[in-house]
Amino acid sequence: MDKRLGSQSIVFEKPPVVAGYASIVGPKEGQGPLAGWFDEIIDDDTMGEDSYEKAERVLYRQATQMAMKKANISDDMMDLMIGGDLLNQIVTASFAARDLGIPFLGLYGACSTMAESLLLGSVMIDGGFAARIACATASHFSTAERQYRVPLEMGSQRAPTAQRTVTGAGAVVLARDGNGARLTGGTIGRVIDYGIMDVNNMGAAMAPAVAETISMHLIDNGFAPEHYDRIVTGDLGHIGKRLVLELLQERGFDLSERLFDCGCEIFSSGQNVDAGGSGAGCCASVLGGYLLRNLGGQGMHRMLFVASGALLSVTSSQQGESIPAIAHAVAFEAD
Amino acid sequence: MDKRLGSQSIVFEKPPVVAGYASIVGPKEGQGPLAGWFDEIIDDDTMGEDSYEKAERVLYRQATQMAMKKANISDDMMDLMIGGDLLNQIVTASFAARDLGIPFLGLYGACSTMAESLLLGSVMIDGGFAARIACATASHFSTAERQYRVPLEMGSQRAPTAQRTVTGAGAVVLARDGNGARLTGGTIGRVIDYGIMDVNNMGAAMAPAVAETISMHLIDNGFAPEHYDRIVTGDLGHIGKRLVLELLQERGFDLSERLFDCGCEIFSSGQNVDAGGSGAGCCASVLGGYLLRNLGGQGMHRMLFVASGALLSVTSSQQGESIPAIAHAVAFEAD
Repeated sequence: MDKRLGSQSIVFEKPPVVAGYASIVGPKEGQGPLAGWFDEIIDDDTMGEDSYEKAERVLYRQATQMAMKKANISDDMMDLMIGGDLLNQIVTASFAARDLGIPFLGLYGACSTMAESLLLGSVMIDGGFAARIACATASHFSTAERQYRVPLEMGSQRAPTAQRTVTGAGAVVLARDGNGARLTGGTIGRVIDYGIMDVNNMGAAMAPAVAETISMHLIDNGFAPEHYDRIVTGDLGHIGKRLVLELLQERGFDLSERLFDCGCEIFSSGQNVDAGGSGAGCCASVLGGYLLRNLGGQGMHRMLFVASGALLSVTSSQQGESIPAIAHAVAFEAD
Repeated sequence: MDKRLGSQSIVFEKPPVVAGYASIVGPKEGQGPLAGWFDEIIDDDTMGEDSYEKAERVLYRQATQMAMKKANISDDMMDLMIGGDLLNQIVTASFAARDLGIPFLGLYGACSTMAESLLLGSVMIDGGFAARIACATASHFSTAERQYRVPLEMGSQRAPTAQRTVTGAGAVVLARDGNGARLTGGTIGRVIDYGIMDVNNMGAAMAPAVAETISMHLIDNGFAPEHYDRIVTGDLGHIGKRLVLELLQERGFDLSERLFDCGCEIFSSGQNVDAGGSGAGCCASVLGGYLLRNLGGQGMHRMLFVASGALLSVTSSQQGESIPAIAHAVAFEAD
C-alpha cells in the first residue's frame, strides 16, 4: 500500500493508538485558564535542581514516566523514545533518554517537535518497526530566555509582539494495539521563509509555514476544514493566529470557527504575557492535558494538531539571516 | 510482519536502494589518504560566503544536490529531506532545506546523524510513506571550533586526545525502487554515559555507546562479526577505536580484522590532527565517497555503518555534567 498522499501527506494503514499521555507545567501556566487539565503544576520551577537546564530535563523525564505509567507500560517494555527540545544540542531530551535507558532518536524541530515526534513515532508503529513509543518535548521559560534572548538578570523590557516561553512538558505514548484515540495521518512540512527578521515576532515568522502545512493537508486529503472539529496550532500567539487566518482565507479556507492556538489559550490576557505563550512545551503540555482529555467528548472527534517551529539560531540572526519556519501536522480521531 | 528484531534492531522487508550518493570535503581533508574518492574537494573553505556557518550550509546543499543529480531525481520529485548537523538549532540543515524546498524532518544526533537519517529514511520508504528521500549531514572545522571550543583567533593549543572536526558533507538518496546497494536493517542506540568529563576526549565518551550498539546489532540478528566484510565506525579516532575493540573483546566479539573508523582514516598521521577526524561530516563524507564507491567490489558486499554522537552541550559541560553518547547502526548489502 502506498501511504503517501499528494505531495506532503501520509496516511496510517493501522492507526497507532494513544495509550497514555501526560503534562506538567510551571507555576505561571498553572494560573492560566487551562490549569485544571494538566496532570501536575509545579510550585518551584527549579524542580529542586541547581540549574534551570537540569530542571527542564526533570520535567521531560517526569512527563514521559507519567505517560508510560498511565499507559501501564514499564520502561523496559518501551521500544523507543523520540523527541527533542529547544536547548542547544537538545540536552534536555538526550539526558532524559540517558536516565530512562530506552532506545532514543533525537529530533530538532524547535516548537514543531511534538508534531514531528508523533509523525515519526506513528510511522515507526504503522511500519511494523515498534509497538510502544514515547513521544515528548519540553521547554522552560528561564532556559529559553537566557539561551535565545538575554540574561534574566538584565530584566529587559519585552516587545509587545514577543511571546513567553512555556515552562512545561508533554508526553504521549503511542501503541500498536489497544483502545483510545488514534492517529490517522499527517503532513510533513517544508521550510518556509517570508523574510521576517524580527526575533521578537515569532508568530509572524511561523504563520506562513502553518498556513502552508494546513492547506497542503486539506488539499492532499481532499478535506474541507469542516472535516475537523478542531484545528489546533502550537504557539502562534495572538499575532500569528490572526495572520494564519488571513493567509488561509486567501487560499479559500475559512478556519475562523475551528482554529485553537495553544499559545493564545494557555495564558489569560491578565497574565502580562504580551502576544501569548510559546515554546516546544506549550502545545505539548496542552496536548497532553486539555486537548487529549477532551478528544472523544461531545463534538470533539477529529482534531488536526499542527505544531510549528522557527528554525533560527542566535548565530543565524546575528549574521543577518531571516527566520525560516516549519510546521508539521498529525490528525487524531476518537469515537 | 513484525520488523522489530530483539530489543533494539529492525529489519527492512523491502530494502531501500541507494539511488545516489555524494561527498564534498575541505582542503585539509582533500590532502588526506581518501582524497581520490570524494566527488569534490574545495579550495576555499568559506565557499565564497561571508561566514563559515553560511559556507557549511552550502556544503550541505551542494552534497544533497549532487546526490540527487547522480540519482537522476529532480528536487520536485523528492518526497523528503531528513538530516541535521552540529550547529545550534541545526541551522545548516534547516537553511539548506529552505533553499531546496523539499519537505523536511530535522534530526539532532550530533555525529550519529548520518546513521540516524539513513535509519529513519529507510523506515519511511519500507513503511510505504515515501519513495525518494535525501539523507545528509555536514560539519565544518571553523564553525564547530568556535561554537564548541574557543574562538579560532585564540590559537589555543590542542590536547593530544582531541580530534579535528572534518569540513565536509555527505548525502545519500534512498529510493524504493531500482538497482544498487540496499539497506537491509539497523539498530537504534540507547544513550550511554560512562562518566567521561573530558571534552577533549570524545573518542572515550563515544566508545561505550558504539560497543553497545554493535553488540546489540549482532545479538539481535544472531550474527557473528564475520557476517560483515567491514564494520565502519564514524569518528572514534585512534583512542576511541582502541577502546571499542577492547570493550567488544570483553563481550566476546573480535572486530580487529574488520573495524574501519572514518575518523582514523580520513587524515594521515603526518597531518597533525592528534587523535583523528570527527564531526558529523566525517563519516558522512567517507560514506558518500570511499565506502559506497567500494561497496559491491571484491570482498566488500556487506557493511555495517555505525555513527556515534557525543550528546553534550557547552552549557551541560559548564554545569559539571558528564558526556552522554549514542550510536546508531545501518546495514548495507551489495552484490
